[in-house]
Amino acid sequence: MTIENISCNKQFGGWHKQYTHQSDVLGCEMRFAIYLPPQIAMGEKVPVLYWLSGLTCTDENFMQKAGAQRIAAELGIAIVAPDTSPRGEGVADDPEGAYDFGLGAGFYVNATEAPWSRHYHMYDYVVNELPAIVEEHFPVNQERSISGHSMGGHGALMIALRNPARYHSASAFSPISNPSHCPWGQKAFTGYLGTDSNNWKQYDTTELIKQHQQAVPALVDQGDQDGFLEEQLKPEVLAAAAESVDYPLELRMQEGYDHSYYFIASFIEDHLRFHAQYLK
Amino acid sequence: MTIENISCNKQFGGWHKQYTHQSDVLGCEMRFAIYLPPQIAMGEKVPVLYWLSGLTCTDENFMQKAGAQRIAAELGIAIVAPDTSPRGEGVADDPEGAYDFGLGAGFYVNATEAPWSRHYHMYDYVVNELPAIVEEHFPVNQERSISGHSMGGHGALMIALRNPARYHSASAFSPISNPSHCPWGQKAFTGYLGTDSNNWKQYDTTELIKQHQQAVPALVDQGDQDGFLEEQLKPEVLAAAAESVDYPLELRMQEGYDHSYYFIASFIEDHLRFHAQYLK
Repeated sequence: MTIENISCNKQFGGWHKQYTHQSDVLGCEMRFAIYLPPQIAMGEKVPVLYWLSGLTCTDENFMQKAGAQRIAAELGIAIVAPDTSPRGEGVADDPEGAYDFGLGAGFYVNATEAPWSRHYHMYDYVVNELPAIVEEHFPVNQERSISGHSMGGHGALMIALRNPARYHSASAFSPISNPSHCPWGQKAFTGYLGTDSNNWKQYDTTELIKQHQQAVPALVDQGDQDGFLEEQLKPEVLAAAAESVDYPLELRMQEGYDHSYYFIASFIEDHLRFHAQYLK
Repeated sequence: MTIENISCNKQFGGWHKQYTHQSDVLGCEMRFAIYLPPQIAMGEKVPVLYWLSGLTCTDENFMQKAGAQRIAAELGIAIVAPDTSPRGEGVADDPEGAYDFGLGAGFYVNATEAPWSRHYHMYDYVVNELPAIVEEHFPVNQERSISGHSMGGHGALMIALRNPARYHSASAFSPISNPSHCPWGQKAFTGYLGTDSNNWKQYDTTELIKQHQQAVPALVDQGDQDGFLEEQLKPEVLAAAAESVDYPLELRMQEGYDHSYYFIASFIEDHLRFHAQYLK
């Protein structure tokens, strides 16, 4: 698989780079960003934290706003940020251009319903194709953790729960914790997966945690002034499910914080240090 | 003077807020951002670092991308980021919508040429009107420092040199160091100030440093892979002028870094700690 470098910026002694490549899984050209910490210059192979962004985002939001590279440089961790949906000509979008379905809103599932089933396979892309590309082209090892925000927090926890052998740890900011039971999740799952809600459970963190066989340690931060908290996010439902099965998930309610990257930036250091415990 | 709060995000224990207000000096409505560190909750009055952004920016670029709030929270310093030009209906813009003149490109001068002289008084706004508003409405003291990037690096150094009693320290990333002798500066100064280059010297850092009476300690960071380095920025001319008059200006050439916020984020901590030495 070939990839094309389209930008490079030195940062904190390491390098932020963007690449494009043809995705077989998604059937379109995709862009992703990678931060490579300074340790690679000494020939070190570094572990990778995958970051899944929320609705409307691309690979750029986290890399520009979260301030994670400072700590990644210290800890010797690469960060990979994919886009949030397939893109480009021929990729279906919501006919009304909704922000919460279609482009920018892939929800990290493999769609089964037309027309979405043609391109919207973000689950396979994030779990398999993208790590294979990253591990082929960059000086990284196969130690992986995964994190994300909102829709991407759902994606990170759900993907770790389904692939405990592939990820050492998982974390999330403001995750959509029980998508089968909130408007964002119901809209997306109905569109991508159809109306039979039995097919939604394989992508619902709260459902998956109850049935887990092998645990991936998880940290969740949630602002208590987040405008989406009660209707969409429901982290208390996830925390209760985790507690009911003794799952190692810590939910931290953060007083006064909202849903923005100002919140993420405030606590990203804790998340990187959490993952570093398991990646080393 | 009244101001209207339009956003508030908790960050690093403090608060990022945006305000709009009617500017008498600029004759239009303006927006600015302020970061208030957690120390104000204990009744403390904190010093202020003013940040002047570069071409095309608003109050948002620095607040979203530089990661300065983490260190400001630790040090107990407020940060104020104004816009880069007057805005709104009736404010003249470059007829061809150039990125380096007109809206988003006020160059921190008081324009004397029509039609710019009606609104483009960013020098008076940054030096006088905005600090008066900030010191009236927020729990800050009158200890001030000033920093900026590119066009805003020019603005920060030039304003500190002209107002040594108002600022304890100045710093810049990639400043336009000698605007009278580079294409960006010549275009802006010709448009705003007219063709007589004698009128440009009052806004040219390299000219001002040679004639300074009272020094404001200054730190300048410049990436050696900055695409604008040779044609537009010329920090070596500024450093030579500073050296010729024993001015306390440190120029650090940073190997491999470019003109982006990835560069600023990498070294903003040094700048805040530099200013904190003089603000306390």
